[in-house]
Amino acid sequence: MSILDKFKSGDPVALARIISHIENRGPETEKILAEIYPKTGRAHTVGITGPPGAGKSTIVDKLCALYLERGQTVGIIAVDPSSPFTGGALLGDRIRMQDLAVNPNVFIRSMATRGSTGGLALATTEVIRALDAFGKEFILVETVGVGQVELDVAEACDTTVVVLVPESGDSIQAMKAGLMEIADIFVVNKADREGAQRLVSELNMMVDVKRDKAGRDLPVVSTQATNNGGVAELLTKIDAEYERLKVGDNFKQHRKKMIRYDIIKTIEHRFKSRLLDEILPNEKLDQFVEKIYAGQGNPYDLAQKIIDNLK
Amino acid sequence: MSILDKFKSGDPVALARIISHIENRGPETEKILAEIYPKTGRAHTVGITGPPGAGKSTIVDKLCALYLERGQTVGIIAVDPSSPFTGGALLGDRIRMQDLAVNPNVFIRSMATRGSTGGLALATTEVIRALDAFGKEFILVETVGVGQVELDVAEACDTTVVVLVPESGDSIQAMKAGLMEIADIFVVNKADREGAQRLVSELNMMVDVKRDKAGRDLPVVSTQATNNGGVAELLTKIDAEYERLKVGDNFKQHRKKMIRYDIIKTIEHRFKSRLLDEILPNEKLDQFVEKIYAGQGNPYDLAQKIIDNLK
Repeated sequence: MSILDKFKSGDPVALARIISHIENRGPETEKILAEIYPKTGRAHTVGITGPPGAGKSTIVDKLCALYLERGQTVGIIAVDPSSPFTGGALLGDRIRMQDLAVNPNVFIRSMATRGSTGGLALATTEVIRALDAFGKEFILVETVGVGQVELDVAEACDTTVVVLVPESGDSIQAMKAGLMEIADIFVVNKADREGAQRLVSELNMMVDVKRDKAGRDLPVVSTQATNNGGVAELLTKIDAEYERLKVGDNFKQHRKKMIRYDIIKTIEHRFKSRLLDEILPNEKLDQFVEKIYAGQGNPYDLAQKIIDNLK
Repeated sequence: MSILDKFKSGDPVALARIISHIENRGPETEKILAEIYPKTGRAHTVGITGPPGAGKSTIVDKLCALYLERGQTVGIIAVDPSSPFTGGALLGDRIRMQDLAVNPNVFIRSMATRGSTGGLALATTEVIRALDAFGKEFILVETVGVGQVELDVAEACDTTVVVLVPESGDSIQAMKAGLMEIADIFVVNKADREGAQRLVSELNMMVDVKRDKAGRDLPVVSTQATNNGGVAELLTKIDAEYERLKVGDNFKQHRKKMIRYDIIKTIEHRFKSRLLDEILPNEKLDQFVEKIYAGQGNPYDLAQKIIDNLK
């Protein structure tokens, strides 16, 4: 049986191998992705982002347990973009989750960047699609909300939950950075700590401003995830978001947005990875570099010419 | 007098306007960059990166003061990639630096992402080139070392200084994330704190391993930047790095590497920004989305076809 047949028959080993394919970008990766893509669009994909130490892993952990209680299957992806400074914590959390990992209804994978390939967001999206095609009903994607990768991953998910804690400081900072743009649900975790109520109030005020424009409510949920406080309510809100998506034409529009995203990101990434092979081969590039070094021309006019030639 | 003439005559207002052009990507941006590019390659550009709270701003501040004492001109760029969670601190530090900002030999600029355009690293590189073309002798680029943007910015600088503090934890984490790859100089700041000597030892061990491969020393400098401790020594090491670059063929090779970087990044960015205008216009994209939504085809085969058509 081929790896794709095994994947289709629900073999988790085949899923793991396909994810490794995606991470290592072997020659077959694109073929495999093309093959499984028609099976996507059935999972509810939920991005969970927020600052280091906000308790995202605990929330993912507890949500996962609730899904399993309902008899549903779960995929978990923990994305650690590069970070030399937060990497350790994430790894520690994953070890804590090992009791979940032995459950056959859960599939857990950590993803981290290697060097500066810049393809982490795309690879994460592809792993989301693979878990979806495999038949996982819920996919939880945990990211440390500090950069571009997180914004990209949020765009690839159906629902985005932004987790804050009282100490994470001004909600204004969160708004500034575009988290307000990507959040569907806000969570104030460690809600027993000082300043939690103030943060909830501030977020509710921000949400009110936004509702006027978008015409819908953004829930703000208080949790104390370590002892399960508020997690069931959070799950209710996450479910409600999915229901909202499925009303009338919404889901069709949403699915098309996702397909559009997958097309654009894939083209951009392929262009990058093939630029030096096919469009501007190394010898040709070297000639241009020599010329510019000698004071003839500049990178901007050259880029213009090359892009013009593509049309 | 045109803005370019004013720029060439050393008018800082023209420099500020050109930087605003770069940030807002007006239609003239590329033309201006093309015009000033031949004047680049004269500054020593130094990237300063490390975790939040490592004291990068203080180091930049003190280094700047030393450059000014030597009668040299300085450009400072503070890059704040998106971060909702570290943004506040950086801003605060910038306010602290206002006494430097009134000095005509210093030009300070903060750069932050707006939404998910993904062009922050490129824009930062272009601002570095603009300060260089303007005639600034030293350009200090401060980034919070947590992601892709920092790695890209480091590639665009002549010399990269990685600042760590004892509390920033395992040097192993730093190595893991590729900081070892990009560092030319390590700084252990807050060297009076517990664990500083251990961190210095660890870094020196790592440096020894690396020296075997690369054949050169990576300095590890201890500083207590708040009271200027070790900053003069750091400056000596930074100067030595520049001298090393200028030996024999090194500088030529290095300049070509920079030109190569500018070419590739500019092409990649232009491709992205023009993809939907020219290569895959919206109506055409919508047709593909409809088809894939209906189960015909997938984003990966489509991307393949589009890239193939470009060749």
